Amino acid sequence: MAWYFILFKQLFNAGAVRQISDIRPVKWDDGSIAWINQTKLPWNEEWKRSKSIPELAKAIKDLEIRGAPAIGIAAAYGIAISAANTAGGTEAIMKSVEKDAKTLGETRPTAVNLFWAIDRMLKKARSLAKAGAKHDMIAYELAKEAQRIQEEDIESNKMMGRLGNKLIEDGDVIMTHCNAGALATGGFGTSYGVIRTAWQEGKDIEVIATHTAPLYQGARLTVWELMRDGIPATLITDNMAAYAMKNAGVTKVLLGADRILMNGDVANKIGTYGLAILAKHHHIPFYVAAPVSTIDQVGKKIKIEQRKPDEVRNILGRLIITVPEVPVLNPAFDVTSHKLVSGIITEHGIARAPYSSSLKRIASGK
Amino acid sequence: MAWYFILFKQLFNAGAVRQISDIRPVKWDDGSIAWINQTKLPWNEEWKRSKSIPELAKAIKDLEIRGAPAIGIAAAYGIAISAANTAGGTEAIMKSVEKDAKTLGETRPTAVNLFWAIDRMLKKARSLAKAGAKHDMIAYELAKEAQRIQEEDIESNKMMGRLGNKLIEDGDVIMTHCNAGALATGGFGTSYGVIRTAWQEGKDIEVIATHTAPLYQGARLTVWELMRDGIPATLITDNMAAYAMKNAGVTKVLLGADRILMNGDVANKIGTYGLAILAKHHHIPFYVAAPVSTIDQVGKKIKIEQRKPDEVRNILGRLIITVPEVPVLNPAFDVTSHKLVSGIITEHGIARAPYSSSLKRIASGK
Repeated sequence: MAWYFILFKQLFNAGAVRQISDIRPVKWDDGSIAWINQTKLPWNEEWKRSKSIPELAKAIKDLEIRGAPAIGIAAAYGIAISAANTAGGTEAIMKSVEKDAKTLGETRPTAVNLFWAIDRMLKKARSLAKAGAKHDMIAYELAKEAQRIQEEDIESNKMMGRLGNKLIEDGDVIMTHCNAGALATGGFGTSYGVIRTAWQEGKDIEVIATHTAPLYQGARLTVWELMRDGIPATLITDNMAAYAMKNAGVTKVLLGADRILMNGDVANKIGTYGLAILAKHHHIPFYVAAPVSTIDQVGKKIKIEQRKPDEVRNILGRLIITVPEVPVLNPAFDVTSHKLVSGIITEHGIARAPYSSSLKRIASGK
Repeated sequence: MAWYFILFKQLFNAGAVRQISDIRPVKWDDGSIAWINQTKLPWNEEWKRSKSIPELAKAIKDLEIRGAPAIGIAAAYGIAISAANTAGGTEAIMKSVEKDAKTLGETRPTAVNLFWAIDRMLKKARSLAKAGAKHDMIAYELAKEAQRIQEEDIESNKMMGRLGNKLIEDGDVIMTHCNAGALATGGFGTSYGVIRTAWQEGKDIEVIATHTAPLYQGARLTVWELMRDGIPATLITDNMAAYAMKNAGVTKVLLGADRILMNGDVANKIGTYGLAILAKHHHIPFYVAAPVSTIDQVGKKIKIEQRKPDEVRNILGRLIITVPEVPVLNPAFDVTSHKLVSGIITEHGIARAPYSSSLKRIASGK
């Protein structure tokens, strides 16, 4: 670039705040939960609403609502709905709430903030019951609590964005995987929130998004968000990642997490572990962004959800690409060793190795 | 496994020759070339035939015929057809042959044995012309020469299979990528030929095949061949490779090549380079199998074919998976450094580092 162009650009961008889009994947809608059916994106923007816990659980299982923070928020709304749905006294309400919490908790075994959100709602319900609150009050307060979880998630994403933005440089080419954007969260994004913040602040960045087989959340959702926000985007198939790192000037890998152990090991969408190895080989920093609620302060091992074989044989349930009876592997997630992680961006700070101490500090809010 | 089962298995397998299927992707058919349309697999086994060079060139460009050795053979048949099609004297024939050789050579820029096969046919044509052969004789001899190229390819694949088989151990779990099977060759397979040979010899092996986006040759073609041959197969998406190496007991990676430089660098289907890095990280040997005609004894750099963006946006032309206008990368191949390659299996021997000397020895037939 010529010097006068750089100067012009700097003058033009100084203090510039670019506009980005506003998307909330789940919403409280007057006693119901409404959600954008993410399995229909990018073809249709279909909104659904329900007051039924089995329907909501099915929507989470079928990935109509997906992304660890978003399913936590959806489950929180589910608990509020459970209380509102139940006629009778406090005991009946609590019984229903505990039962529905179990149903919702069983939808996706890997996402730790699903359990975190459910626990928070259960605690709230129990303390309301203990304080002698009646049906309407419990239902009202639980709905408020779930909405607070969503608002806090958005706020924490924005904080994470501001902190993570310090790592992003003008000219960065950022590879990302799956979708950790507005659609995966309360409405801003974790790793994609960092990208959005850098873009809003006027930084000249580009994003390379992977397909993210077998459900193509990168191609379907992240590209959809990038295009809405006007951020320069390039789509690649998953197996082009090493090529792109070597030949397309990738300077950072930045993605989300579904669960983080206290030692810094990261469970995230299948393919993350491979990208971390490829990034290390090419000396490219590998960053994870996730809210503190993603940190599993108890677990030592991560249970990996194995999904239906047909997802691998049959693209998005629409296109058979192989011999129907072939056996497949279909882990939804993999685990990336902390040794491959350059930093973990949270709303309370950026953790660096050794993670056992940095994550402990961050998780305790100190 | 219980000891008596192992004993039974050993007795049962001793000297066993398992049956495998017979597939030839291209055939000489009484003055025409016939081919199985690989873009229709595994859904339909559609055979096409033609005497038209533009039709044949289009079939190669559109990947109806694909795999470096198979397109070399197809182009050789094309040269024979070119001579047969041309009325007139030797000069007219040679003019037509040279023109059609150019058309066929421009179909796929990366495959070196395409040029090798065309060169061999041109040399044959020129020597026939020089010796004063007339139209029918030239056409007849060129058809014979192309058939010889196919038969030699099958023989060399079988030799490669026997040599490569020495590297395969009972119990191996072999990861492969794309299709380097019967469909990619004259009719036996390069890296898949090694797998077939080990299987025929009674070795207890399993194969993990990758999807191989964006054209899914692994899911569509390799799985189809594995299932026909009865070899235990598992299909994964491309981004599950690192997970499978870590968790599914992969003991070897074995795949084909489209071009091999004299220093041992390997151009092969996009994704190969990433698999090589992942294999190194997991201390898994990474082998390439390819005929000597794949070795580029002249070139120092590899030109990477960039294919149409819609292949990445739109799965197999049948399913849109992203926002239609998103920019994409679509390299058909990548280059794997010789530093990541444990061995190169050819019909004349297995090359090991340092490749500059081992490949030289093999390429010169010594």
